[in-house]
Amino acid sequence: MSYDLLSIPNGHFHPGLSIDCVIFGFYKGELKILLNKFHNLPKWMLPGGFVLKNEDVNVAAHRILQERTGLEQLYLEQFYLFGECNRSDVEMKLTSFNRKLTDEEMHTHWFMQRFVSLGYYALVDFSKVHLNAGLCDEQCEWFHIKDVPQLCFDHNRILEKALTTLRRQVGIIPIGYELLPEKFLMSDLRTLYETILGHAMDRRNFQRKLLASGVVKQLDEMYTEGAFKPAYLYCFNKEYFEKRF
Amino acid sequence: MSYDLLSIPNGHFHPGLSIDCVIFGFYKGELKILLNKFHNLPKWMLPGGFVLKNEDVNVAAHRILQERTGLEQLYLEQFYLFGECNRSDVEMKLTSFNRKLTDEEMHTHWFMQRFVSLGYYALVDFSKVHLNAGLCDEQCEWFHIKDVPQLCFDHNRILEKALTTLRRQVGIIPIGYELLPEKFLMSDLRTLYETILGHAMDRRNFQRKLLASGVVKQLDEMYTEGAFKPAYLYCFNKEYFEKRF
Repeated sequence: MSYDLLSIPNGHFHPGLSIDCVIFGFYKGELKILLNKFHNLPKWMLPGGFVLKNEDVNVAAHRILQERTGLEQLYLEQFYLFGECNRSDVEMKLTSFNRKLTDEEMHTHWFMQRFVSLGYYALVDFSKVHLNAGLCDEQCEWFHIKDVPQLCFDHNRILEKALTTLRRQVGIIPIGYELLPEKFLMSDLRTLYETILGHAMDRRNFQRKLLASGVVKQLDEMYTEGAFKPAYLYCFNKEYFEKRF
Repeated sequence: MSYDLLSIPNGHFHPGLSIDCVIFGFYKGELKILLNKFHNLPKWMLPGGFVLKNEDVNVAAHRILQERTGLEQLYLEQFYLFGECNRSDVEMKLTSFNRKLTDEEMHTHWFMQRFVSLGYYALVDFSKVHLNAGLCDEQCEWFHIKDVPQLCFDHNRILEKALTTLRRQVGIIPIGYELLPEKFLMSDLRTLYETILGHAMDRRNFQRKLLASGVVKQLDEMYTEGAFKPAYLYCFNKEYFEKRF
């Protein structure tokens, strides 16, 4: 928010509505999320923004995400509208400005009004992400899910709700389909599920159930790098997903 | 909307945000939804309303639903924010007013602005609902899901999305728990699933799977009314739900 919010007139954005994105990436057995920091704010926050006056809300979400990740096609899902009255911190908002507001601006400037925020999450193939902190003075970094600091506003709650939603939807939406490379080890997929669910899973049961469900199929190709025994590679069964989603 | 929207000043409600509710009720093997009609509008619509300036969004949804159903405690779930630019029909909006708007009102009145609408759905025990068309000149009726007419604005799409969400969540949320009476026949529950999913299910498999899952338990009580053979009554397993939700 170091671009000059004060200079943007009322009516430029749809009033009282913001978008916050929880962008999950998976790499080497670790689930990470993408956070932003503006130089004049003390805390990190979820990448987010506002909806233009004549912009569809989902289009705005894609635009905002693209500004941050460089990715154009993302699996992006609305998960909740955060609509509590007291969710924004006025003091925190004021620190976004480079100068003091007049009394009138305090009451009438669009950014000082109450905002409800629509949460989206995205599952991103880590290897394809080119971090792109598009706005000046903005930092953009991946954080391990266990190392997320105290965030701005209610953003820790938004992240928590995104995780809860993801946990509930394991098995309904194609988790892993967007987070893993095209060919992967069964252990990678199991680690992903374990990370999202927060508990260990039995190796053999997991493999048996996934293969039986038709979600995943084994390739005629082995992974031989490193010091480990060669292991079969797997891929997602595209026909399964096309039929179901 | 026959209460005088024109007389409500800008700033009374949170700007540009409405709430629409898809209220499902189940009775005698039929899935129904609740619709409203205002005397000066040609089409039926989903029960809906607006969020007060200092009201939490979820609180507003409960208030709006209570105004329509008389029920205070509902299983209520946000399912989607409908945010397309062109989702409201300006002509339809204008017919809500008892008089013509001035040119200035056309541009500045809160109700004439773009609205995004947050969809909620509720699963209601039909037998407990006391229909309560709280606002004057309002009709309120249950419609069989197959007899829903062309609705105002994008309300048919909102209903369709609610049904899709319900179908995806069968098995995750306690469907039936809120829609059926405390004691019910296995055939009632199966009919409910068949109605939501839109296809027939095998009687024996359905019963076997539900009992095995622990969601439902058989009572020591028979249903003997009517011309049919006596049949066991069932209830939901409260401990199962308390552990999972």
